[in-house]
Amino acid sequence: MRFAVAQSGGPTCAINASLVGIYKAATEMSNKVHNHTPISVLGVHNGIQGLMDERFVDLSQVLTSEEAVDLLRKTPSTALGSCRFRLPVAEQDDSLYGKIFRVLQKHAIDVLFYIGGNDSMDTVAKLSAWIAQQGSDIRIIGVPKTIDNDLIGTDHTPGFGSAAKYVAMTMQEVVRDSSVYRVPSVTICEIMGRDAGWLTASTCLLRANGEEAPHLIYLPEHEFSTVQFIHDVQRKMESHRSVICAVSEGIVMPQSESYRSGASDAFGHAYLSGIGKHLEQLVRQEIGCKVRSIELNVMQRCAAHLASATDLDEAEAAGRYAVELAMEGKSGCMVTLQRDAGSPQYRVTCSHIAAASAANVTRTFPATWINEEGNDVTDEAVEYFLPLIQGEVLPTMRNGMPVHFRFASNLCW
Amino acid sequence: MRFAVAQSGGPTCAINASLVGIYKAATEMSNKVHNHTPISVLGVHNGIQGLMDERFVDLSQVLTSEEAVDLLRKTPSTALGSCRFRLPVAEQDDSLYGKIFRVLQKHAIDVLFYIGGNDSMDTVAKLSAWIAQQGSDIRIIGVPKTIDNDLIGTDHTPGFGSAAKYVAMTMQEVVRDSSVYRVPSVTICEIMGRDAGWLTASTCLLRANGEEAPHLIYLPEHEFSTVQFIHDVQRKMESHRSVICAVSEGIVMPQSESYRSGASDAFGHAYLSGIGKHLEQLVRQEIGCKVRSIELNVMQRCAAHLASATDLDEAEAAGRYAVELAMEGKSGCMVTLQRDAGSPQYRVTCSHIAAASAANVTRTFPATWINEEGNDVTDEAVEYFLPLIQGEVLPTMRNGMPVHFRFASNLCW
Repeated sequence: MRFAVAQSGGPTCAINASLVGIYKAATEMSNKVHNHTPISVLGVHNGIQGLMDERFVDLSQVLTSEEAVDLLRKTPSTALGSCRFRLPVAEQDDSLYGKIFRVLQKHAIDVLFYIGGNDSMDTVAKLSAWIAQQGSDIRIIGVPKTIDNDLIGTDHTPGFGSAAKYVAMTMQEVVRDSSVYRVPSVTICEIMGRDAGWLTASTCLLRANGEEAPHLIYLPEHEFSTVQFIHDVQRKMESHRSVICAVSEGIVMPQSESYRSGASDAFGHAYLSGIGKHLEQLVRQEIGCKVRSIELNVMQRCAAHLASATDLDEAEAAGRYAVELAMEGKSGCMVTLQRDAGSPQYRVTCSHIAAASAANVTRTFPATWINEEGNDVTDEAVEYFLPLIQGEVLPTMRNGMPVHFRFASNLCW
Repeated sequence: MRFAVAQSGGPTCAINASLVGIYKAATEMSNKVHNHTPISVLGVHNGIQGLMDERFVDLSQVLTSEEAVDLLRKTPSTALGSCRFRLPVAEQDDSLYGKIFRVLQKHAIDVLFYIGGNDSMDTVAKLSAWIAQQGSDIRIIGVPKTIDNDLIGTDHTPGFGSAAKYVAMTMQEVVRDSSVYRVPSVTICEIMGRDAGWLTASTCLLRANGEEAPHLIYLPEHEFSTVQFIHDVQRKMESHRSVICAVSEGIVMPQSESYRSGASDAFGHAYLSGIGKHLEQLVRQEIGCKVRSIELNVMQRCAAHLASATDLDEAEAAGRYAVELAMEGKSGCMVTLQRDAGSPQYRVTCSHIAAASAANVTRTFPATWINEEGNDVTDEAVEYFLPLIQGEVLPTMRNGMPVHFRFASNLCW
């Protein structure tokens, strides 16, 4: 039996932990069931695009020691590489579907695991449906990952916890940095989240450690007004010498104040950047105080040097559960994480939904957890986020720097 | 006997470790010498400015446990607050000197320790000279700190090692992040260093862990040409899909291409920002490939969540040595770190120079460690930097986030 695993979309800290979960489950299963054909696991380079180009790596050739597996688990970004590729609607043009199908058949692949966000679930849904129509039992299973936490059907997404932990730690350090002088100042932190404010909202975590900051939190889920923003900042400056604002890159500016380039990616998503700089300039003009904007940039999705242990454990568990689903003959579904609402302790179990229902849908931050003024979140948010950042995964260090897992280029087919 | 300690200039990860070094040495000395008056240590809020305002905190009231001392040691930024304040030339106007002197006398302060960069050493030099002229034996001792590593007379500065470690770790993660797609791309990391390229140059550390990146390194010590920059990037793109550039915020653009605001701080230093964005735009225009700029911003001076153990140890040792100098009756000097060139193992001892010689002087990155093209550094640089980032100081964690030391506001006099 043969599995293939591909990774797609933007990097996270936990996407390789899901890959390891799939690999470990397959290996353990091979070792257990003696009368069964062993399961081999192929890594696919650069997602569905690499699949079409037949760019594989035999993971058992590479993951030859527990150390190698552990290193891969802790390495940020997508070790197999990624892609941003959208399958056309099959009814209009299914030539690529046929191409992928032939590659899967040629390499005797029984199950394709696709680790990604909601765009990747679109691929899982479309491809699994088309393959089933051909009467084939090749299975396609989606494993969620995104720092945006915006997939529906799951309590949260692997990758989010580590990103939230990094953002909270960094914001806390920025709070220390920004409070050393006696002059009044405003600091604006721009945080990722195209359509959903989860990661920006998670900065409320600082309050669990007794920080008042961030004093203002702005999410895409609430209309943004620059007039109100300046008013909010001025009001906070009355009681705080150093005002810290967490602002989502995706906040919705009034039409009249739009300043964006209009460029967009393959999925039609607008490239966002510069909201922090824009607001910095606005504060300088309207208030005239010391002001600085900070963009947490790609670091918030790839900083694995102090990842959330809970996040990596759950990411691995999601990978393992995906293998269970495949062995049950399931296809076209996405693994989900379900929080046990009845348990006093934080407990999560894996379940699944149809990938089609997660595809192209954004789960936004609950409106009921945003305050009336639209400039902060409620205590429910702190309680929701807190379990997701618990525990630390320390990197393997060499020469005072983390060691990262890398595939040797000569191991690609 | 009474010590006062003040912190000045920009935050670092190690400035509180020097404060702890002074505090511990004073406490140990008090406990040892039974016939001696014990030494009390006052913290001064916001540097020399807070001294004039008599804003003190009795450290023995606050640092009541080993845990508190350890927490302060690991907390980033300046726990006592900072200032940017330049003493006028005494010959022209010594009224502020008199004011400071009277405060020192009023509070029976025998030694003032000033932890800071080369601007702070200007204060140490001027103030110690003026006080000596009054026939007073109040001593002023400078303890170096700066992430810029640009103080003369010392092998390196406390605070630099942790900043270099953070920059290297982050760059390594950015390398992982930027290499996931198949499309050619350029990533430009803008790194702090107004007049000296030490921190930018330290990105060469990645090569000790087998990374080729950064492929291009630009420092203020070598003239920068945008024509050459585009040419360099194009050449690197021939052999690398993802080209990573480390660029100092202080690189010297040709006069004709200047785009800066011209604003400057109290010391006449130009506020720098935006070189990364500027070069990003240039690459987009001239090469037209995928390009991103990343500003490591204040995180590089305050990210203490995985600090260099070597750096914090040396920062504490520098504080302890400053107390030795004071007990010997020295004044107007700055602690230095001397690397034992003859030792096969990295070894550092403390020494001192006149603060006047360190004031207002910048120690630049050696021209002999820059390659001929001015776009990279040599292996000597890797060897120089490597010992400074060794060892990790893990933060004390609570709720999945580091705990920071903070002075309660009611403990200020």
